[in-house]
Amino acid sequence: MDYPSKVLAKAVEEISGLPGIGRKSALRLALHLLKQPESQAIALGNSLVKLVTEINYCIECHNFSDSEVCEICSNPRRTDEILCIVEDVRDVMAIENTNKFSGKYLVLGGKISPMEGIGPNQLNISSIERKLQEGVVKELIFALSATMEGDTTAYYLYKKFKNFDVVFSTIARGISVGDELEYADEISLGRSIQNRLPYNEAG
Amino acid sequence: MDYPSKVLAKAVEEISGLPGIGRKSALRLALHLLKQPESQAIALGNSLVKLVTEINYCIECHNFSDSEVCEICSNPRRTDEILCIVEDVRDVMAIENTNKFSGKYLVLGGKISPMEGIGPNQLNISSIERKLQEGVVKELIFALSATMEGDTTAYYLYKKFKNFDVVFSTIARGISVGDELEYADEISLGRSIQNRLPYNEAG
Repeated sequence: MDYPSKVLAKAVEEISGLPGIGRKSALRLALHLLKQPESQAIALGNSLVKLVTEINYCIECHNFSDSEVCEICSNPRRTDEILCIVEDVRDVMAIENTNKFSGKYLVLGGKISPMEGIGPNQLNISSIERKLQEGVVKELIFALSATMEGDTTAYYLYKKFKNFDVVFSTIARGISVGDELEYADEISLGRSIQNRLPYNEAG
Repeated sequence: MDYPSKVLAKAVEEISGLPGIGRKSALRLALHLLKQPESQAIALGNSLVKLVTEINYCIECHNFSDSEVCEICSNPRRTDEILCIVEDVRDVMAIENTNKFSGKYLVLGGKISPMEGIGPNQLNISSIERKLQEGVVKELIFALSATMEGDTTAYYLYKKFKNFDVVFSTIARGISVGDELEYADEISLGRSIQNRLPYNEAG
């Protein structure tokens, strides 16, 4: 396609570099920005530049953070004895939203995936080792995706750290709240029968 | 949602201001940019700022342009006698892609839409009048959407300019190439029977 203006062509090219956005959508977004007050596109543009140039990582858990140690790691009311291994910041946010966890996190930064060329060395595994060597952690929770890559990563970490004196656990898998049994996939249903829990009135 | 970093929160907020992008998609896009080399987000951010601060409009047709008069308007091989009225730059690009039109365009910048609060005064209608007063234009083509707003706009322009000595035309409507009759909507099919054309071998 021939764009009538070079700045428009450049913007469309850059926007369509984002995942899931093709050239038509990119042009639609660019035209939208041109119809809004200039300040909106300027704020958006500047926030993207600031995002990648000013973002910091917590030196403890590798989550994004504005300070050297993030708010979760520096919170004295959270226990250091339970360490929850997650893939990325979205998982931290999802678990924090449940208000059910008061330990600390460690953000791996991905999962072992030979298909995508991600091996253990690209993940923050040495930080887990350092924390285990300090001897404070008593339980290591694997809160990883229920996929082959997630399972592989958990297995790798278990093999690597099983000689440390910690309990290993993994988040429960089964039927989601609100799901109908007849529509559940057989693997989830099978696991939820195998891992059945004592019934109590609180549910 | 609580974001662990203010620059991340700001970027997500700005990205989710785009149409069709919610907070979850915005976070996914921000995390994608953080995984890429810094230069990608910087190039994207800067191109958006440049887009709105450096874009120019052709003084003849109101299309986007890098120069005062766009390449189409300044092309001596295109006739000034046929003026094609379109809604926005995407329509210019779509018609240019067909290679079937060698006249000039006039970009209205929208269509009359009481629902969206767009009246004739927000559109580039005075430029049509100026061109008609110059006396060069012999045919005015309405290449507007086949919607109520498009039809209203065409009717408004026809009423306003019918006393000028020009031929008015509108792009043909009917069955799209490749369409099966049984799946066509009745209005399109009805119009294509009413506006039937002499058959010739070239199709």
